Amino acid sequence: MKEMNGIKIRKELLDEYQEIIQKGNLSIKLAIIQIIENEACNLYIRNKEKYAAQVGIKTEVTLLEKDTKEIEVIELIEKLNQDPTVTGILLQSPVPEHIDFQKCTEKIAIEKDVDGLTKENLFSIRNHQEKILPCTVAGILKLLEYYQIPIEGKNVAIIGRSNLVGRPLEDALINRNATVFLCHSKTKNLKEITKISDIVISAAGVPNLITKDMVKKDFIGIDVGMNLVEGKLVGDFAKDIEEKASYLTPVPGGVGPMTVAMVIHNLIELKNGMK
Amino acid sequence: MKEMNGIKIRKELLDEYQEIIQKGNLSIKLAIIQIIENEACNLYIRNKEKYAAQVGIKTEVTLLEKDTKEIEVIELIEKLNQDPTVTGILLQSPVPEHIDFQKCTEKIAIEKDVDGLTKENLFSIRNHQEKILPCTVAGILKLLEYYQIPIEGKNVAIIGRSNLVGRPLEDALINRNATVFLCHSKTKNLKEITKISDIVISAAGVPNLITKDMVKKDFIGIDVGMNLVEGKLVGDFAKDIEEKASYLTPVPGGVGPMTVAMVIHNLIELKNGMK
Repeated sequence: MKEMNGIKIRKELLDEYQEIIQKGNLSIKLAIIQIIENEACNLYIRNKEKYAAQVGIKTEVTLLEKDTKEIEVIELIEKLNQDPTVTGILLQSPVPEHIDFQKCTEKIAIEKDVDGLTKENLFSIRNHQEKILPCTVAGILKLLEYYQIPIEGKNVAIIGRSNLVGRPLEDALINRNATVFLCHSKTKNLKEITKISDIVISAAGVPNLITKDMVKKDFIGIDVGMNLVEGKLVGDFAKDIEEKASYLTPVPGGVGPMTVAMVIHNLIELKNGMK
Repeated sequence: MKEMNGIKIRKELLDEYQEIIQKGNLSIKLAIIQIIENEACNLYIRNKEKYAAQVGIKTEVTLLEKDTKEIEVIELIEKLNQDPTVTGILLQSPVPEHIDFQKCTEKIAIEKDVDGLTKENLFSIRNHQEKILPCTVAGILKLLEYYQIPIEGKNVAIIGRSNLVGRPLEDALINRNATVFLCHSKTKNLKEITKISDIVISAAGVPNLITKDMVKKDFIGIDVGMNLVEGKLVGDFAKDIEEKASYLTPVPGGVGPMTVAMVIHNLIELKNGMK
């Protein structure tokens, strides 16, 4: 089994991105809007700030009160859309219940949509005209590319049907001529599906969901799960699945580091699109 | 094996729709734009006119010259958008190569988008907020509903990834909690996928693509294929597949009649949305 090392690839990519930014003298600034303050959100944001700073990208976090009205979030987004120094805007999820995440996201100007979650952008992926890929999706594709794993004609099981990961990932894989099995919490007999899958990508958030008996020999496993079990971060794959994998992402250290690297990647793409 | 009789259901539905239109005194008019004149297009359009007339819906076909410019198509659509007597607009596909079908379709006002193919509408399906379902998709769902075939938790293989059928059909089935296997021309070993499918829906346009040995006993087969073989209309399923099906759509007489009934259905939906 070969481990897909997200930390190592992130380092290589960030070096590359730093060079692009320096050579091009690119002035990039990411505006992050945070409404919920908890450990996970703070960690995600801190990570983005850290790696952005490392490659010479500015970040500006606006922390809004929990009871901020939806219209105020939209007004802030519209202000940031107008600000010529801001080149990327990101609304950190989750948001409080009284705020409609998709509605607010829609207000982000497409040329500053670093997460790629506006309707316009998502539809462009579906329509074989990819612009920005959502960061986790881009990270998974980059991992497969790095390890030269072919996608065309492969059976890929995706577990999870969110707009953030599962659905745009499916679109991107269909664009690359994979056959996609879209599975979710209502799927019955997941095993008969994963058994015929060359690549299994799980974004379910259920520890030990995918066990050794469910996969075929030499399968490729991408674990997007991030579950806290007894204070330890684990994915959706059982530990002993290693025995049957040809390639596998660890948790932590697999998809996670790639996602943050792709935030930087997308910021550069957006900046270049503006020129 | 029970045959899913699209012609019988169309008749029942049209009777129902006629009553709705008469009771509601609904004034509905469908504008059809045709650019390519061939036997298939003419037949599709004649069918729409025929069943529309039958339930008391007006139709108006504009036949444009093959060398019409894209901008002229768009101008016509914009004129029809403004016309208060027109309640539905449909651009008959295919269109000549110099015209971008999706670009023109985008210009149809969403409240007159009878085919449901505008970006805005397609995204609403994806986003669990269905408005108008593309007519073939709506027809397939209506067939399953009529024969009380459950969808939730079922494995459904869709063969074909077009924006017209495969992709929105997948979205609608995912909304109904099916597990979807999206297959296409680059899929390898289709048999291992159809073998574990409770429902197989083929929109590939390849005669004899799905054979008896590829499906499981008592599977449900929906054949969207329309292939002319030696002057005869056949679907994608081999003839002897009947032996293994619990339900099966004939070709012709299955999905086809449902599609035209759904044009009428969507026209009523759009009209009611306007009130």
